[in-house]
Amino acid sequence: MIKQIDACLERLIATCEEPSLRDAMHYAALGAGKRIRPRLFLAACEAMCGGYDEAALQFACCLEMIHAYSLVHDDLPAMDNDDLRRGRPTVHKQFDEATAILAGDALLSHAFEIMARVCACAESVQQDYAQTMLIIARAAGANGMIAGQVRDLASEGKQLDMDTLEQIHRRKTGALFAAALEAGATLGGNTHTQEMRKLGYTLGLAFQIRDDILDVTSTAEALGKNPGSDINNQKSTYVSLAGLETAQEMYKNISADVLALVDSIPAKTLTLRDLITQVLTRDK
Amino acid sequence: MIKQIDACLERLIATCEEPSLRDAMHYAALGAGKRIRPRLFLAACEAMCGGYDEAALQFACCLEMIHAYSLVHDDLPAMDNDDLRRGRPTVHKQFDEATAILAGDALLSHAFEIMARVCACAESVQQDYAQTMLIIARAAGANGMIAGQVRDLASEGKQLDMDTLEQIHRRKTGALFAAALEAGATLGGNTHTQEMRKLGYTLGLAFQIRDDILDVTSTAEALGKNPGSDINNQKSTYVSLAGLETAQEMYKNISADVLALVDSIPAKTLTLRDLITQVLTRDK
Repeated sequence: MIKQIDACLERLIATCEEPSLRDAMHYAALGAGKRIRPRLFLAACEAMCGGYDEAALQFACCLEMIHAYSLVHDDLPAMDNDDLRRGRPTVHKQFDEATAILAGDALLSHAFEIMARVCACAESVQQDYAQTMLIIARAAGANGMIAGQVRDLASEGKQLDMDTLEQIHRRKTGALFAAALEAGATLGGNTHTQEMRKLGYTLGLAFQIRDDILDVTSTAEALGKNPGSDINNQKSTYVSLAGLETAQEMYKNISADVLALVDSIPAKTLTLRDLITQVLTRDK
Repeated sequence: MIKQIDACLERLIATCEEPSLRDAMHYAALGAGKRIRPRLFLAACEAMCGGYDEAALQFACCLEMIHAYSLVHDDLPAMDNDDLRRGRPTVHKQFDEATAILAGDALLSHAFEIMARVCACAESVQQDYAQTMLIIARAAGANGMIAGQVRDLASEGKQLDMDTLEQIHRRKTGALFAAALEAGATLGGNTHTQEMRKLGYTLGLAFQIRDDILDVTSTAEALGKNPGSDINNQKSTYVSLAGLETAQEMYKNISADVLALVDSIPAKTLTLRDLITQVLTRDK
């Protein structure tokens, strides 16, 4: 599945005609990432209808482009000011700051252009395509991922309570995870979309707790980014608020919740369950 | 028409729930701009079908949000580093750099979310909505406006030839002007779309030549931004390449071309012609 996603990402980014912009977009979107969001999308689609087609693959890649743009902008000096991502210099380090801003803008715009084209060029008029795009747009937007980053930046240097921290991650990570699963189920037959959405939010939260644990227990080499960056940016994390041991206990419990949610969905969730298990046991 | 556009922009931006983000989006999109792109869109729609509805008004506002995002990002220190826009401090001066990056991202995402919602929520399935969105997305995207900004930045300090300068402005300004007219005509009945597109590109070029002339002949007070900024950023302009007198001559000729193109379109272009005349005779 990852090979198909990467091949499709290559094709889609190759349609950008501006060489320097295309290089930066390619660098940002095709690094050594795990492609979790597009895989969740495709696995949800497959769970509902037994497979996925070219349109689904393109939607999946749009999710990855939106994720990649958010990383490029979050890493900027005015934001989290990170130098290392996926084992390589961040985009503004590898190229320059203007290129990073524009490559992020271009990845986001390109994703929407591709989704709009799928909607506009469908042979038969397909309302599900528009609905799929709307779910993804809402998650990426001003009340989703971007609101999460705004709150995250505003909370630097502050001691948050656990509920506020969860609200940040619900938007910053959860929204796009939830959208991947809800949109995949929508495209795959438009059933069990709300269960998929809930599963996505819960998985996103688990993902973030794991991230916070790895930030203190792992190395730059294993992570592909600098560990301890949350501490350096004076950010509250599950570990800083609850302590490592309690965070690990929370992680165990939420992982069990995630698997129970998958198992409660009456669809062919075998691939999805495998993928989620991989996500839950990741060490980078 | 401007009052309707501004009221709709107010409504659409008010749906952003994050106060600091909403304030910055509002500041960026609802300053003393001329709302040229949404007015061109609505006038093109009206020329084709005699009026415009709520969906058209929302598409028009999305064009303005996309334009506003591009200004916010272009003004950033890593890009054109401008302090003054529409008679007020630029967004990163009024707020901060992180807020400006995120407000730009949010305006772009919000525009696509709104267009996706119009597509997904249409009572009858409306392929023209998807086509309208695609035209706008393509113009904003990696081969449109963003490619123009990439080339513009890359050309700083270089002496360009006239053809290269035109290619930059075709993308940076022309693409969104052309999209406004083509998309308006598409939504208004899907006829004369290519003529409208050509008109938009020509008007965009005229707009840019006028901009270059005003940059050397006008004051900060009249312009609402700092004049001479192109010279300070060592950018080639029509005036720096051809001289003021020749640029003014070019402007006279291209203005005549624009009006001839409007008059060649067999539709009710009265409002559109008035608007274009206003754009051609602007002094700020």
